[in-house]
Amino acid sequence: MKKRSLSGIQPSGTLHIGNYFGALKQFVDSQDEYDGLYFLADLHSLTSSKDSEKLKENTKNAVLDYLALGLDPKKSTIFLQSDVSYHAELMWILSNVTPISLLERGHAYKDKIAKGMKPNTGLFTYPVLMAADILLYDTDLVPVGKDQKQHVEFTRDIAIKFNEAYNKNVFKLPEDLILDSVAIVPGTDGEKMSKSYGNIINMFLPEKELKKQVMSIVTDSKGLEEPKDPDNNIVKLYSLFASKEEVDIMKNKFLAGNYGYGHAKKELLESILEYFKDARYKREKLLNNMDYVNEILDQGKKRAQELAYNKMKEVRETIGIYR
Amino acid sequence: MKKRSLSGIQPSGTLHIGNYFGALKQFVDSQDEYDGLYFLADLHSLTSSKDSEKLKENTKNAVLDYLALGLDPKKSTIFLQSDVSYHAELMWILSNVTPISLLERGHAYKDKIAKGMKPNTGLFTYPVLMAADILLYDTDLVPVGKDQKQHVEFTRDIAIKFNEAYNKNVFKLPEDLILDSVAIVPGTDGEKMSKSYGNIINMFLPEKELKKQVMSIVTDSKGLEEPKDPDNNIVKLYSLFASKEEVDIMKNKFLAGNYGYGHAKKELLESILEYFKDARYKREKLLNNMDYVNEILDQGKKRAQELAYNKMKEVRETIGIYR
Repeated sequence: MKKRSLSGIQPSGTLHIGNYFGALKQFVDSQDEYDGLYFLADLHSLTSSKDSEKLKENTKNAVLDYLALGLDPKKSTIFLQSDVSYHAELMWILSNVTPISLLERGHAYKDKIAKGMKPNTGLFTYPVLMAADILLYDTDLVPVGKDQKQHVEFTRDIAIKFNEAYNKNVFKLPEDLILDSVAIVPGTDGEKMSKSYGNIINMFLPEKELKKQVMSIVTDSKGLEEPKDPDNNIVKLYSLFASKEEVDIMKNKFLAGNYGYGHAKKELLESILEYFKDARYKREKLLNNMDYVNEILDQGKKRAQELAYNKMKEVRETIGIYR
Repeated sequence: MKKRSLSGIQPSGTLHIGNYFGALKQFVDSQDEYDGLYFLADLHSLTSSKDSEKLKENTKNAVLDYLALGLDPKKSTIFLQSDVSYHAELMWILSNVTPISLLERGHAYKDKIAKGMKPNTGLFTYPVLMAADILLYDTDLVPVGKDQKQHVEFTRDIAIKFNEAYNKNVFKLPEDLILDSVAIVPGTDGEKMSKSYGNIINMFLPEKELKKQVMSIVTDSKGLEEPKDPDNNIVKLYSLFASKEEVDIMKNKFLAGNYGYGHAKKELLESILEYFKDARYKREKLLNNMDYVNEILDQGKKRAQELAYNKMKEVRETIGIYR
């Protein structure tokens, strides 16, 4: 039997190529290996934003992005967190075995407090919701970046507390699966690509706007004729999309001189458009067929609810809910 | 239109006459006046107990007690909190507008910490669940004892925060309805009757055990012939069940002498049995017809779910859940 992996995706705005190579590509590539559950963590988004229009739009876009990029409803279960009421229900139940001291150790909470965010209860308790997300589905593996390792540790701690409190192995202890990203994807300014740095390249933008992002990649100011250091941002990004051979050609052109950054950026743009050609086309098609997208979400909801229902039945019996 | 009142009842063991005169009698007496929702707060019980058999048994007993004592499914909505998944869902949503500082002010939390209870997250956050319980049903009035006034205040605070955050009056602000109990019901030792003091009289015990509780009422050691102070525990309890005339007769007997505490206790026992005669009979009948009890809970669940569903629909639209 395939191991079950579960990933929550925060619908937090347009996907960029840093997100893609950082996590999504691995999700897509491992769809045959795992029984993958992918949910849009719309309930989690409430900790940071109270903009309802944005949440709605972001959720829609995230579904479209992920389907377009290759999450396959025939292989994986794709659903909205808010479509399965058991997440919040299990969260409450788990709250009663979660020491406050555990939550006070949370990195994300401490970071946000340090950044001056006004602490609300959701921000403090969301690791318990995350534990519920994971434990509800007897998850074996949780693919995470290194910075999210703690969430899986918390989940294991909470599962152990519950199993001990009720003297029964109700919850399977999940393992983390640290994603080794291909490389850190540099943004247009050379720093790690991140929405908060404003240095992103969005693969789903209209061509004209995408071009603008690519053209904004920061370079030095060497003249056209001069030879240039091939260890630059453009080459780093280009190597994500082009073959080794093509990358070597570009490097040589930089070394030879008479090859401007503008030329290279144009080639990079072409390679991005080529790489995401099918995905861009598919996204367009999905956008014009939202009924189909909703069917996919219905189907995902159905399976997720079934799995969660069975688990909750066991949980409710264990804690002594009357019926 | 009738005002809607909502009361959560913790299934915490056998009901005693202190509970009855402290709250339940008022619930029963006001059933024609209000659109009353009464729910067994089984999810709340998790904050203090991890004994699943006890929770199950207590829930069943609470339902039987309340129905036997006169909560009428034709007039009121009686349901289990755990039968309506929206309570926990709304709790999570409200968490995101609830400042941690608000919960830190909670009396119940501070008390329990002071008593040396190991703080779990549920104990800390349960006022948010309580707010969800109340706000989910557009509750007008929450009947509470004086010591629970803060819960209604918290609920109002949280409702205001939400309405402000989303700039929409989604939640009605509930009012508290302070229960004026007939009198403080004294226990068998003269202190306030309370399970934790071990001085209770349970109206639903078998006659023999009930007699034992009544006979254990503490008195002074005056001899049979001596006149006695009519301002004693037996008379105080007797006056809950007997007419003013009957109480006066008992008082005079005490003053006249040749009337022992044992005689008075026997009269008190008779009056308790008489007062709860119908309820005791009804409870017995219900216990032998649990299918009917389950039907009542099904019916309550149906109405509660309907009300909660409509409210949650509005809430979900307001916060921007995609569908």
